[in-house]
Amino acid sequence: MLVDGVIGYKTHTGSKINQAACDLAKEVADEGGCLIAGGISQTPTYLSGKGKEAVQAEFRKQIQIFVANNVDFLLAEYYEHVEEVEWAIEVLKETGKPVAANMCIGPEGDMHGVSAGECAVRMAKAGADIVGINCHFDPFVCLEGMKKMKAALDKADLHPYLMVQPLAYMTPDAGKQGFIDLPEFPFALEPRVCSRWEIMKFAREAYEIGIRYIGGCCGFEPYHIRAISEELSKERGGFMPEGCQKHDMWGQGLRLHTKPWVRARARREYWENMKPASGRPFCPSCSKPDNWGVTAGDDMLKQKTEATTDEEIKQLAAK
Amino acid sequence: MLVDGVIGYKTHTGSKINQAACDLAKEVADEGGCLIAGGISQTPTYLSGKGKEAVQAEFRKQIQIFVANNVDFLLAEYYEHVEEVEWAIEVLKETGKPVAANMCIGPEGDMHGVSAGECAVRMAKAGADIVGINCHFDPFVCLEGMKKMKAALDKADLHPYLMVQPLAYMTPDAGKQGFIDLPEFPFALEPRVCSRWEIMKFAREAYEIGIRYIGGCCGFEPYHIRAISEELSKERGGFMPEGCQKHDMWGQGLRLHTKPWVRARARREYWENMKPASGRPFCPSCSKPDNWGVTAGDDMLKQKTEATTDEEIKQLAAK
Amino acid sequence: MLVDGVIGYKTHTGSKINQAACDLAKEVADEGGCLIAGGISQTPTYLSGKGKEAVQAEFRKQIQIFVANNVDFLLAEYYEHVEEVEWAIEVLKETGKPVAANMCIGPEGDMHGVSAGECAVRMAKAGADIVGINCHFDPFVCLEGMKKMKAALDKADLHPYLMVQPLAYMTPDAGKQGFIDLPEFPFALEPRVCSRWEIMKFAREAYEIGIRYIGGCCGFEPYHIRAISEELSKERGGFMPEGCQKHDMWGQGLRLHTKPWVRARARREYWENMKPASGRPFCPSCSKPDNWGVTAGDDMLKQKTEATTDEEIKQLAAK
Amino acid sequence: MLVDGVIGYKTHTGSKINQAACDLAKEVADEGGCLIAGGISQTPTYLSGKGKEAVQAEFRKQIQIFVANNVDFLLAEYYEHVEEVEWAIEVLKETGKPVAANMCIGPEGDMHGVSAGECAVRMAKAGADIVGINCHFDPFVCLEGMKKMKAALDKADLHPYLMVQPLAYMTPDAGKQGFIDLPEFPFALEPRVCSRWEIMKFAREAYEIGIRYIGGCCGFEPYHIRAISEELSKERGGFMPEGCQKHDMWGQGLRLHTKPWVRARARREYWENMKPASGRPFCPSCSKPDNWGVTAGDDMLKQKTEATTDEEIKQLAAK
Repeated sequence: MLVDGVIGYKTHTGSKINQAACDLAKEVADEGGCLIAGGISQTPTYLSGKGKEAVQAEFRKQIQIFVANNVDFLLAEYYEHVEEVEWAIEVLKETGKPVAANMCIGPEGDMHGVSAGECAVRMAKAGADIVGINCHFDPFVCLEGMKKMKAALDKADLHPYLMVQPLAYMTPDAGKQGFIDLPEFPFALEPRVCSRWEIMKFAREAYEIGIRYIGGCCGFEPYHIRAISEELSKERGGFMPEGCQKHDMWGQGLRLHTKPWVRARARREYWENMKPASGRPFCPSCSKPDNWGVTAGDDMLKQKTEATTDEEIKQLAAK
Repeated sequence: MLVDGVIGYKTHTGSKINQAACDLAKEVADEGGCLIAGGISQTPTYLSGKGKEAVQAEFRKQIQIFVANNVDFLLAEYYEHVEEVEWAIEVLKETGKPVAANMCIGPEGDMHGVSAGECAVRMAKAGADIVGINCHFDPFVCLEGMKKMKAALDKADLHPYLMVQPLAYMTPDAGKQGFIDLPEFPFALEPRVCSRWEIMKFAREAYEIGIRYIGGCCGFEPYHIRAISEELSKERGGFMPEGCQKHDMWGQGLRLHTKPWVRARARREYWENMKPASGRPFCPSCSKPDNWGVTAGDDMLKQKTEATTDEEIKQLAAK
Repeated sequence: MLVDGVIGYKTHTGSKINQAACDLAKEVADEGGCLIAGGISQTPTYLSGKGKEAVQAEFRKQIQIFVANNVDFLLAEYYEHVEEVEWAIEVLKETGKPVAANMCIGPEGDMHGVSAGECAVRMAKAGADIVGINCHFDPFVCLEGMKKMKAALDKADLHPYLMVQPLAYMTPDAGKQGFIDLPEFPFALEPRVCSRWEIMKFAREAYEIGIRYIGGCCGFEPYHIRAISEELSKERGGFMPEGCQKHDMWGQGLRLHTKPWVRARARREYWENMKPASGRPFCPSCSKPDNWGVTAGDDMLKQKTEATTDEEIKQLAAK
Repeated sequence: MLVDGVIGYKTHTGSKINQAACDLAKEVADEGGCLIAGGISQTPTYLSGKGKEAVQAEFRKQIQIFVANNVDFLLAEYYEHVEEVEWAIEVLKETGKPVAANMCIGPEGDMHGVSAGECAVRMAKAGADIVGINCHFDPFVCLEGMKKMKAALDKADLHPYLMVQPLAYMTPDAGKQGFIDLPEFPFALEPRVCSRWEIMKFAREAYEIGIRYIGGCCGFEPYHIRAISEELSKERGGFMPEGCQKHDMWGQGLRLHTKPWVRARARREYWENMKPASGRPFCPSCSKPDNWGVTAGDDMLKQKTEATTDEEIKQLAAK
């Protein structure tokens, strides 16, 4: 369900598709002793301003399949407005399952001007057992937001578990609204992809902040998740998953390379201090995000049932 | 076999591994009506200066399995010295199969100072039916090399087919020796990965130069290969492989996106003119390649049977 | 006097030097019908924590020469702490002269955590007739700070004149403390120097915010000041100073260039849309400022009478 | 006279202007015991294809004033075609004065395809006592060209003195034709200005190559020339010109700075390793030069007597 929200395409919610997804998830989870989450995300219904009752009705319909399949916990994620995620948490809590809730916001808070700290407090008060941030920003921008959430939660004497699932794309320039607005989204994001070393640094910093549910969103590849595992192996009692058997950490496999100057890279401090070049001398380092200044309630965001026409694309492009 | 050369690790050449590889290749090729190539690449034996007889003996041993499996054609690729690829072509020609030959060089030519044009002429004269460049440089640097090869071949009235299989990494800064020497090799190359639009541009330019075997080497993902297919669909009689059914070209799928400023990107000229930022404001755009000035014949490059020790790594790092 | 504060060297305040400065200023001002300001700036005395009485005594001593020379107005500028500039304004007001007051802060406010808006309100309440920002940040970062000042002043129903004198160096990466902390300060700032087009853009935006005292600080060259004049000529009744006679605006002089592609640059839209490259492919676009987290009151900042020794430099460099 | 060539404006050659220039030069030279050169540069006459006789006639006319003023030596500089500088050298030699000759070329050679090495040999054979490169490229690109000149001269057993006067702008991206073609020329070159440390590095490398006439062209400020003097003081018997008395080398003056992290920069290795950021995150590091592919003989380059019209600018801009 998450993917629908992230990519923004039409939703195919036939119960057959959802059942197939649950079956697949169960099969994979059983291989590794993992938990299964059923996830919902922000709705065009909310963006179109149809109100609490309509939005919650949609959430209730979506989670039937999760309840029928007895998933381990429920997840409300990729919300840009704290009001909508509160409505989602209320619905998820009706099931009696543990509830995790994430917003796709950065340190500047939600699209209606609510601060990141206040968002965390409201998610916790609405009943979320785990609160945090997912998508829209890079690992380090997300951690800036998480620090604000943690501080506000501590101040309010609220102590939910913390969770973070950032992009694997660098987005220091993504403004308040996140990477959707960057001109490179979604088909030229390659130069922004994080290295495994950047992800290890992220995992360490997340752990030190007190976050215990550390994952990834768009752009994460299996080797990025493996990097989290490796960085925090000691904290997990030395546990290393199967994927870690395929390689040596910190470039140790390079000891066998034919070129001596590549063998010289088989050491931790080399990769820890790496500032990778983009190899693109005619490109800038940062981009200016689109910033059309519209959010939930704006007519432009009302859900459309038809694909945009050529003429409309031309008009949009001219803005 | 290629991978052994590219990554530089110890070679596991047991006949069982090679037979399994042939079986897998045949299975996949049969699905799509493809040809199978058996490939060999440059040898530590050559770098260690053991001479023609020893090197050719090794090639002969390697190709037995290809002959036994009756592959469609043979490929000698990833050679840094034209002398060695000539020796390889001689051995491959003994089989009577069509022979393709690639060097991993750029416009500046091979490691012994032979120009790119002269390399092409010598590969053709040695008997290669297809000649070109693979690996080590980005698509556009490789095409610079291919133009020099084409010009020299034309001048010598030699007309082999042309072939190119570049990296999917941008490497304008890779010097004469290629991306191995870039400090980011091999574990921080992410910001250099080509977008699909860059690959489409490459495919078009390669075709216009007269190259008819257009592929990719390290860094290519399936969507990059698909981009080649899509760009040249018209030239192939409108043929579009299965992988192209999963998406709309030139970002047309974005017409359904919820944000109007993202819908505005559903057009060719948007992506064609994209100069993607790296999102890394504290990083440079280019890197200085290691340039230790050693090549075949140098003692440092003699094959070692043991992995580099900690002490040796420390000494190498101090260079 | 300003320069002492900006560069941070020992102050030579002998009355002869000050008298000579007044004489020079008067001579130049008379040439163009200009006003003369007498300026003071932040003191090591304040940074060393010696208290209001000691600091104001120093200010009183400094301004004697301005009063004796009957300057047109007084200027307190380059203050990092609003408390100190309030003390300065009090002293300057004792003279009965018009008083301008600037802080060298950005949008994040002063070094003790007072917001930019609150700083402006406190300067106005302390009696400054003109308030604003000078030095430490680039034109566009300074304008961000000025917008916050303007908003807070409007809200407090205070209406002093507004003033801005930014650096001519681009400093989007200068953090809260300004360009002193950038690693390039002060001897490698060249790539950050603004073009005349950037200064024209700044002048226009400053005017539109309502600022009527628009100038420049470190890095400004005569052609930068001329650019302000030219941009705002219409607003000043068409007045163009002598310096504008030496060239044609918007590159019109290029119409006579021998190369046709340079003649093609003789037009406003070319220069208005210029994004100049640094020509430094191995350098980053931004730097990480030093951020030692010390401000007035910290022992490290107490005034020293001796130059730093080699040993001390070594210790500082190791931090 | 040089400036006319560099900037490309109409030439004002009235003998009064030239006499005034000689008077000024003599006055300044006498202050410091310097030599005076009379310089000529490339002509629109050559670019317009009017032939040797017409071009040499123009040179003869230009140098009358130098002869009348008995300058110390003659300089032919800023030539893009070796043929034209040969004609210039012939004329200058007629005076019996020592003759220096520079071309504004890089390592790729002149605009008619003559290599840098061949250009040097031809200038020496034409009679130049000093040969080298000036303008068009940055210090390090010029030195690449000088190395090629030196190698070719050595091979031809020719031993003129060597001379280099690069830009003070970084131009790794200037292609074959030089900085005129960069989109930033001439009004947005600021981010390319060299630091004093870059100039010191240049001076050292130039000296080591064997160049003994080391200076600067467009973009050089007095502090850049001073940096050359300081770097090579030891080689000149410890001589330091007056301008060096105003500051301490290698940032030693920073020992008195109030901020300890700035005092930490008072050391040679800090500035020697500086990679200055441009502070322009939305700008590229390099630019694509205009490359219209026209040179002497092309109709587009024929001298025009009238300034380009608005309509012509529009047509040029549309190219």
